[in-house]
Amino acid sequence: MAKKPELDDFRIPFFDEGKKGSAFKLSEFDPGGKPFSAGSKQSDRELLLELGTKLDAQQERLHAQRRQRVLLVLQGMDTSGKDGTVRGVFHEVDPLGLRIVPFKAPTPAEAAHDFLWRVHAQAPAAGELTIFNRSHYEDVLVPVVLGELDNAQRERRYRHIRHFEAMLADSGTTIIKCMLHISKDEQRERLQARIDDPTKHWKFDVSDLDARKLWDKYQDAYADALAATSTDYAPWYVIPANSKTHRNVMVAQLLVRTMESLKLEFPPPKDSLKGVIVE
Amino acid sequence: MAKKPELDDFRIPFFDEGKKGSAFKLSEFDPGGKPFSAGSKQSDRELLLELGTKLDAQQERLHAQRRQRVLLVLQGMDTSGKDGTVRGVFHEVDPLGLRIVPFKAPTPAEAAHDFLWRVHAQAPAAGELTIFNRSHYEDVLVPVVLGELDNAQRERRYRHIRHFEAMLADSGTTIIKCMLHISKDEQRERLQARIDDPTKHWKFDVSDLDARKLWDKYQDAYADALAATSTDYAPWYVIPANSKTHRNVMVAQLLVRTMESLKLEFPPPKDSLKGVIVE
Repeated sequence: MAKKPELDDFRIPFFDEGKKGSAFKLSEFDPGGKPFSAGSKQSDRELLLELGTKLDAQQERLHAQRRQRVLLVLQGMDTSGKDGTVRGVFHEVDPLGLRIVPFKAPTPAEAAHDFLWRVHAQAPAAGELTIFNRSHYEDVLVPVVLGELDNAQRERRYRHIRHFEAMLADSGTTIIKCMLHISKDEQRERLQARIDDPTKHWKFDVSDLDARKLWDKYQDAYADALAATSTDYAPWYVIPANSKTHRNVMVAQLLVRTMESLKLEFPPPKDSLKGVIVE
Repeated sequence: MAKKPELDDFRIPFFDEGKKGSAFKLSEFDPGGKPFSAGSKQSDRELLLELGTKLDAQQERLHAQRRQRVLLVLQGMDTSGKDGTVRGVFHEVDPLGLRIVPFKAPTPAEAAHDFLWRVHAQAPAAGELTIFNRSHYEDVLVPVVLGELDNAQRERRYRHIRHFEAMLADSGTTIIKCMLHISKDEQRERLQARIDDPTKHWKFDVSDLDARKLWDKYQDAYADALAATSTDYAPWYVIPANSKTHRNVMVAQLLVRTMESLKLEFPPPKDSLKGVIVE
């Protein structure tokens, strides 16, 4: 009997200064797999509703306590489902204390600063659950693929990222990072669907086709970046994401597990309120 | 004949992971000294004017080039002359591209984030010369003196600061940090002057007297923090500051030397403008 898959089977091994460049390929993970599916689409939907309710309960405690912070980083190729994950996983969660931050091409003011400047500004406050839709990882993926960073610069950026995330973690931020993993075929179908449906044209940009041409280089850049920045304080998980339902179920399971491990509680009752009657 | 003092005699030795806790006391530096004075108050004023003009010329190039950034951090006990340094050193400098950032007690939004959050947000943009009047160093001085951080937390904060400043430096920011060093007697006179002159009451807060009672603890905390965070990419200098004129002359000399070492140039002329006649 095959071993039941565990979430941590999809966690990238933690970066180890001593054995840098440990080979790891994204192709080791099957983007079409559904290891955490409950069996059918219908049972997955029920599971997702259940997970969403748990997530909402956790987030309410986080918000009431206003002490800890949670940061979810979503990365993935175009059409990998970052927006869809936000919609699919968090629709049961109270928007109060939830913040979605999309990172686009840098504005002139952002480009005039270091690459972590705009990211740090959006880090979760105490009591917040923040989701980065794209992130500082774009700054070690795009320029690496386009050949704008040499090896030394790339390694320094990885180090700056590790240090930055270590500082956030040390300040009470729990970080969890998900790479939404789709196949090149799946991307073709999704891009084509966007082209064929005029109501989806707003999601499509011709430059998406240029990035698609660099698919293999991006896969390598992802593997390299994930290996260099998966740490015990900010682990990376690869999410098989050809199936949207599976993707949502897996991200929701990860997040519920993470938040439950924080042992979040409502603040203690106030003795001063004992027996108070509102007149 | 005594050796002519050099600016680097007042630079705190760079932090070395291997020999942590290298003893260094602020009392090694005479706050009443005037090693960089031109001789008389009058000649110091002339020197300051000359340095201000040089600084203005450098800052104009920095601003025109819009590529590099300069950050001056000013720290010191109450009344050590942080405001006075800004006024005295930069009055010849074009306010365009110069930005002064005072850090006060954290607001609720600031306190809801890590201690570097508000500081990173104010880091200089390309082409800017930014002055921090107090800084992230308050967060390793005040809580250490008040016993709110244990040794491990303190050392971690030092490390976060080193990493943060290394990242800024790697992104093209030149950092220079000055500790304005006054004696306890000098502070008494300056505080008394603020109390005796009603037009200076706005500068005085009763809590300044509480901090004064902890003078020795603050001196130790400063020595410890400076030793742990003086690096080749963000060096600390101790500025003898009982004499305001000397303080200004020395800070101005440091800054002129630093900016001249950047070899700042105006951007190259635009060929497209050659021979163009405005009609």
